[in-house]
Parts: sequence; structure tokens; C-alpha cells
Amino acid sequence: MASPHLDTLFDFLRFQSVSTDRQYLPHMAACAEWLYERFRGMGFECEIHPTPGHPVVLAKSPRVEGRPTVMIYGHYDVQPVDPENLWTQPPFEPVLRDGRVYARGATDNKGQILAHMLGTEALLAEGKELPVNLIYLVEGEEEIGSPNLADFLKAHEAELQCDVVAVSDTGMVAPGVGTLTYGLRGIAALELDLVGPQSDLHSGIYGGAVINPATVAARLVASLHDENWRVRIPGFYDDVVPLRDWEEAAWAKLPDANETMLGVSGAPALGGEMGYSSHARVMARPTAECNGIGGGYQGEGTKTVLPSKARIKLTFRLVPDQEPQKILDLAVRYLEAQVPPQVRVEISRGHAGMPYLLDPELPAAQAAIRALHAAFGGEVATIREGGSIPIVRTFKDLLGVETLLLGLALPDCGAHAPDENFPVANFEGGIRMHEVLMKELGRCL
Amino acid sequence: MASPHLDTLFDFLRFQSVSTDRQYLPHMAACAEWLYERFRGMGFECEIHPTPGHPVVLAKSPRVEGRPTVMIYGHYDVQPVDPENLWTQPPFEPVLRDGRVYARGATDNKGQILAHMLGTEALLAEGKELPVNLIYLVEGEEEIGSPNLADFLKAHEAELQCDVVAVSDTGMVAPGVGTLTYGLRGIAALELDLVGPQSDLHSGIYGGAVINPATVAARLVASLHDENWRVRIPGFYDDVVPLRDWEEAAWAKLPDANETMLGVSGAPALGGEMGYSSHARVMARPTAECNGIGGGYQGEGTKTVLPSKARIKLTFRLVPDQEPQKILDLAVRYLEAQVPPQVRVEISRGHAGMPYLLDPELPAAQAAIRALHAAFGGEVATIREGGSIPIVRTFKDLLGVETLLLGLALPDCGAHAPDENFPVANFEGGIRMHEVLMKELGRCL
Repeated sequence: MASPHLDTLFDFLRFQSVSTDRQYLPHMAACAEWLYERFRGMGFECEIHPTPGHPVVLAKSPRVEGRPTVMIYGHYDVQPVDPENLWTQPPFEPVLRDGRVYARGATDNKGQILAHMLGTEALLAEGKELPVNLIYLVEGEEEIGSPNLADFLKAHEAELQCDVVAVSDTGMVAPGVGTLTYGLRGIAALELDLVGPQSDLHSGIYGGAVINPATVAARLVASLHDENWRVRIPGFYDDVVPLRDWEEAAWAKLPDANETMLGVSGAPALGGEMGYSSHARVMARPTAECNGIGGGYQGEGTKTVLPSKARIKLTFRLVPDQEPQKILDLAVRYLEAQVPPQVRVEISRGHAGMPYLLDPELPAAQAAIRALHAAFGGEVATIREGGSIPIVRTFKDLLGVETLLLGLALPDCGAHAPDENFPVANFEGGIRMHEVLMKELGRCL
Repeated sequence: MASPHLDTLFDFLRFQSVSTDRQYLPHMAACAEWLYERFRGMGFECEIHPTPGHPVVLAKSPRVEGRPTVMIYGHYDVQPVDPENLWTQPPFEPVLRDGRVYARGATDNKGQILAHMLGTEALLAEGKELPVNLIYLVEGEEEIGSPNLADFLKAHEAELQCDVVAVSDTGMVAPGVGTLTYGLRGIAALELDLVGPQSDLHSGIYGGAVINPATVAARLVASLHDENWRVRIPGFYDDVVPLRDWEEAAWAKLPDANETMLGVSGAPALGGEMGYSSHARVMARPTAECNGIGGGYQGEGTKTVLPSKARIKLTFRLVPDQEPQKILDLAVRYLEAQVPPQVRVEISRGHAGMPYLLDPELPAAQAAIRALHAAFGGEVATIREGGSIPIVRTFKDLLGVETLLLGLALPDCGAHAPDENFPVANFEGGIRMHEVLMKELGRCL
């Protein structure tokens, strides 16, 4: 292996920094320490801040008045490795194969955050001062939902003041296509527990005279969409900002989403809300998804029960300007009204996160597009993503700043799965991208 | 304990004759042996017939020409005892408490079949000849679906020729109310496996553009009934024989089904097909029941998946003259047509059984009503039951005879549940009922 960049990445990847499991605590601490040393080596002021969970690594370049401040956010924790037997090599023993680095965390998020850090080191190696003041916020709990990060931000609000946040933790639409994500969907979760009879009944002795809660559950889920897969909850679309013309035009130039989705999902065909492309359905349209339904007998063969209980788990993916709590109110009212008196329902609201939308015409976003073009060439894709990254909204609400999402992950990167990998081309491109981005932001902010 | 009848019942109940589990094989064999000795003691010709599963005990009184032949059917196997910790006393150590015998099998079916046997012994003890030729068919596989009984009937068709069958394995509408069941619902089972994407997908990345098989499953179940809980499958009701006026009149005199069903089920309210009473809904109307539905994440909390699979288990309870295979054909056609091209469906047909209906005006049925009246006093209830006993239909198809269902089980007998019990009054009433029934059948057949 000839590249010192790869040597550094391999060192970073060897830490078994799994945040879900207490047995990895020493590895988490060692990984945070490694980052600390790295930032100190760059001449940054650095602190490892303990939290009720895993520590946050916070590093700051020596402050120069009059320059804009950019915060880079990333995480050093990784997903668990199971099923480990499906890995081609041990997940914490990185290897280079066919131009990709294979290891847990290669893409999510060590490869991506390290690309920024190495980009900063390259700028410093040019012998000049950095074009911006830099803050690195590298947390250790992203894979478990960042339970302590909002409190950390609040407690350190003053020293985290910045002009923009940059994050590489989203996807590229295809290999070699620089991608700026300017929108994320929000989320709102709901669970319904339906109880009819107090225990499962004999479907011969009672069937016909006792209402079946599994059937009621099915009716509720079926009531979520009309025949064109439009959500039927009254008011659901009231606050949706319509797609803008330039968005449709931009997405029309993207690689065929249908082909990618069919390939990766293995579904017999795609489908969704009538009148929208697959791109628009995922990026810009809200959904009502049944994540789980269960009631009665689910084993092998037949059991002639009239079930006592059924349960439904729903999440709504939201787009600007839908408000999660308002959507939950509408959904609860709509669903509750359909539950017949023969069945009791208990409704629990789950987690909620606001959608996010950045104006790609903002100077910082244009700077990001130029940086991506410089790093990867060709036309930069500007997309929204269908997933939710709640911390991006927290940056906006708490620090009053926008976030640039300059993801380097490929659709087949295996994040959260066996054989996670990161192409060297994306890694090196990310380093170049960071260098240009800092220069561009230094000029335009 | 003063009663020799109860001593005998307790002996019978002590056998751990659980048919589902091979570890009870010696207990099954010992129980069949005990029956053999009992029948031999009555002067009957008796044989224990091995089957691929558990043995059938077949006993015959010495044949007298010119007398009608009655076959008594019952079973010596019992349900498993779990959850055993919910029993007040060990399930195979019978006790007498507040006028009821508590033990596994007390009602289902040892107490009931033994009442017949003791009734026969009482007739013999009168010193006279039996008024009919008697065949006892006591099998050991009823609780596991009688997998070998139809073959046994075919193999012994000649020696099983009889004029009528009597079975005590159904219910009494209330304590002390003799009950003739003249109808049973049939059954037809269907399972649908729905597969969309090849594995669970991230509901953010794919949600909106990939059709959710759990939602499709819910739509199928929801499509089974209209807003008045009438089954919507086209043609489903075509062959249903309408309720006759005398049936509605007879059922109007029964104890309030709503009160009983609310009490036993614990449902907040009852409900079902509009325009019918609870009695009619269970006894005389067909159903489409979802016995189970499952798809996606069913654990605690939220998991934002778009499920790969969903499964539905359905059974239809059928009434005369619905044909199970025809109903399954209609259901499959109706459901299959609704599955969108984005989801693959695999449909498996399960077991099926014909409904049964006896004319209560037949001389044998009238004899049964007189016997029930003699044993329990008051007016005899004539009902249909919502459950299915497929062997009754097999008796009719193979031997060409009707079956009298003279059940002695109370609604709170705990069959298939902890603390199964049988009132001594029902036990002694059953013995008297058998004596009168044999005399009445001897006269009228």
C-alpha cells in the first residue's frame, strides 16, 4: 500500500468503536484518543468531552478574526458487525480490494469524516493559513440516535457559533457523480394497539359475533392510502411545499432511479403516488408507511383463533413544511374515528423529526457545488434524500445555521450491512472536495 | 367420595393421555388398555386397533338381529396441559370441588364418553338386554385433528354399519339445559404470503417508491367485509340456506347470547353481520376470519423498515349448502385480483370441512330430545354450533348415517385451558340421558 492517506484510514478503521454495546467502551475511548492526537497534530485546540454516553471530540483551529467559521460534523462510532459470518474478511481488519476499502465504518462514517480531516491537513501542508476558522464536532453516538448531542450543543452553544455546517454522511447518486443533498424528509412515528376480546377466542364458537381486532387493524392500514397511493388522512398534504420546476428538471437528469431501485430492492415492480417519478416520491413527497403489523397466529399451519390483539407500527416521512406533531394529530384523529366500539385502541406517539430544506441558490450551497465539481468533475447532482437526519434540523434551530450535505456514500456501500466498503476514488475525491470547499467558503461567506 | 361413578371417572382422568407429544405414548397405550378392560367387563367384544398414530378402541355389544345399531363416538386423548402453572391442582390429579370435577379431559372428552359407557352399564345392570346393538368408537387422535380416523372408517366400513351415531362432545347452552346440536359450521382455510422487496428496506430511502406488502396484506383483509360486516367476496352467500322461521323462534328462547359472549370474551361490545342476532351470527351465518396477520417489525419501539414480506391466515366458517372448495375458489379469485403487480403472492389452501345440518324432525333427533328432557328436565334447546367437527360429515358420507350431538359441556368448562372441569350434575345427567336415549332409539329406529 503506497498511500499514507490509506494508512491513516486503516488505522482509524481498526478501532472497534461500536457504540451500542458496552463491551466496546475501551475501543470507543481509544478511538476518541486517536482523533484527539490527530487534531492536536494539526495544531488544533482539542477536547474529549464526556457525556452520559460516549464522548464527543471537539476540535478548533486557532481562531482568526474576520474569517468565516465552518463546522464539520461527523461520527467515529460504527454499526455492530453482525452477522459477522457474512463478511469476506474480519470487519475490523481493513483490506483494499478492487479499488475499495472494506471494513466496518469504511463509508459510515470514518472514511468520510477522515476525508475532511486529511483535506484540512493538505491545506495546512500548503504552508498557508486556513481560509476559514474550522470546528470539528465528531460524536460517538450517531448509530444509536445521538441521545446526548442536543444537550451537548446547548451546553456549548457559544463556542459552537459558526456560519455553516458541512457533513459528509449522505449518498452520491452514482459513482463519480458529486452530489449535494439540499433536503431531508422529517419523520413522525405512531403505534396503535388494538384489543378486542381479553384472550384469543375459538373462531368457531365466537366467529361472527365478536369483532376481530386484526381485521380492524387491517382496515386502519388500508385506510391510509387511496387507490392512487395518495395518503387519505384529511389535511395531510396541506402544508406540503410543491415541487419546484427546477427540481424536476434537475432530477430528470439523474441516473434512472427505477433501475437502481429495482436492482437493489428486488421488488417485482415499483409503484407509489400517482403522478410522480420514483425520484420525486422518495425525495419530495411524504409517505404513510406501515413498518409493522401483527395480530393472531403467525406460526406454521392453521390455528382457528379470533385474535385478542393486533398492533400497527406506522411512520410518516414528512417534507417541508409539514410539522410532525400536526401530522400526528391529524393521523390520530383520522384513525381513532374509524375504530369501532367493539375494539379498544391505545395510541402511542413515537419519535418525531422535522424535515429540512436548504436553498441551493445560497452562496454556501453554490460553493459546495463548485467544490464537488472540482473534486469529481462533470455535473453535480442536487438532490433531496428520503431519509431523516434530525441533527441537521437541530443545528438550524439551535445555532441558526444551514447544513451542507456533501455525501460520499455509494448505493452499494454496505453501510449497516456486511462487507461495508468505501472506494478509494471517493476517499481521495472527498479530500480534494474539502480543500476546495474551504477555499470557496472562505471567499463567499 | 361416595359415588362409584366418580371413582371410575377419576381413574380415567389420571391417565396422561396427551396425543400431541410422543413422550406420553405409554400413557396413551395404558389408557386404551383401561378402556379395553372396561368394555370387556361389559361383555362387549373389544379390540385395540393400531393406526399410524394412536390406537382406536372399538367395542361392540353382542349382536342381536332385528335391533337397530347405534354407534357412540368419543375420544380418550386430551389437550396438553400448558400453561401448567395456571392450574389450581395438578391436571392429572382429579379433585371434586363445589360440585365439579377438575382435571384435564374432565369435559373434553373423558367425562362425556364415560357417561355413555356408565349408562350402558346401568342398562345392563337392570338385568335386561340392551335395547339396541351398540358400537363404541373411541379414538386417540381427536385433539390433533383425527388424521387416521377416516382411513380407519374406510377399512372397517362393513363392521361399522349402523343406523345412527351419537356424540357427546358439544356444548349445553346453560347449566341444566339439555341441548341438541343439529348443525355445525364447515371450514375452509387459506394462507397468503406476500413478498415485495427481497429484504426489508430503509423506509426513508425507499419509502414512497416501493409498494409495501404489509399495506397490501392489510388491504386484502380489509376487503373481506363491507361496512355492515357482510363478506364482500362475490358469490360467497350464493349457496347459503336461509334461516328457517322455527330456528329463529327457538333461538329467541335461549339464554341471552350477548350476555354470555360479553362475559366470556371480555370484548367491549359485540358486533357482526347487520340484521342478525349473536345466536344467528355464530350458528347459522358464514364468516371470513383473519386468524393471523404479520409483517415487518413487531418488537418494541420503532424500526423504520419497509417490510419485505407479509402473511395472512384466513379461515372461512361455512353453513349449508356452502362447499369449501367452491368458497376457496371464490376467495382466491377475489383476493388475487387485488394484489398489485409490485407484490408477489403465494396462496396455500389449508384444511377444509363441510358444514353439517340434521333435520331435528327426524325420529332419531326427536328421540334425542326426549332423552335430554328426561335427563335434565325443562325445555330442550335445539341449536347449531359455530364450530366444525369434520368427522360428523365423514360418518354421513362414508356410513350414510346422521349424527346426534348431545353435548354436556358448559361454556365455562375450560376445555383446552387450565382448570378444565365437569359438573357432577352433567356427568350423572349424561348417564341418565344415555339410558333413555338407547331405549328411545330402540323403539323408533
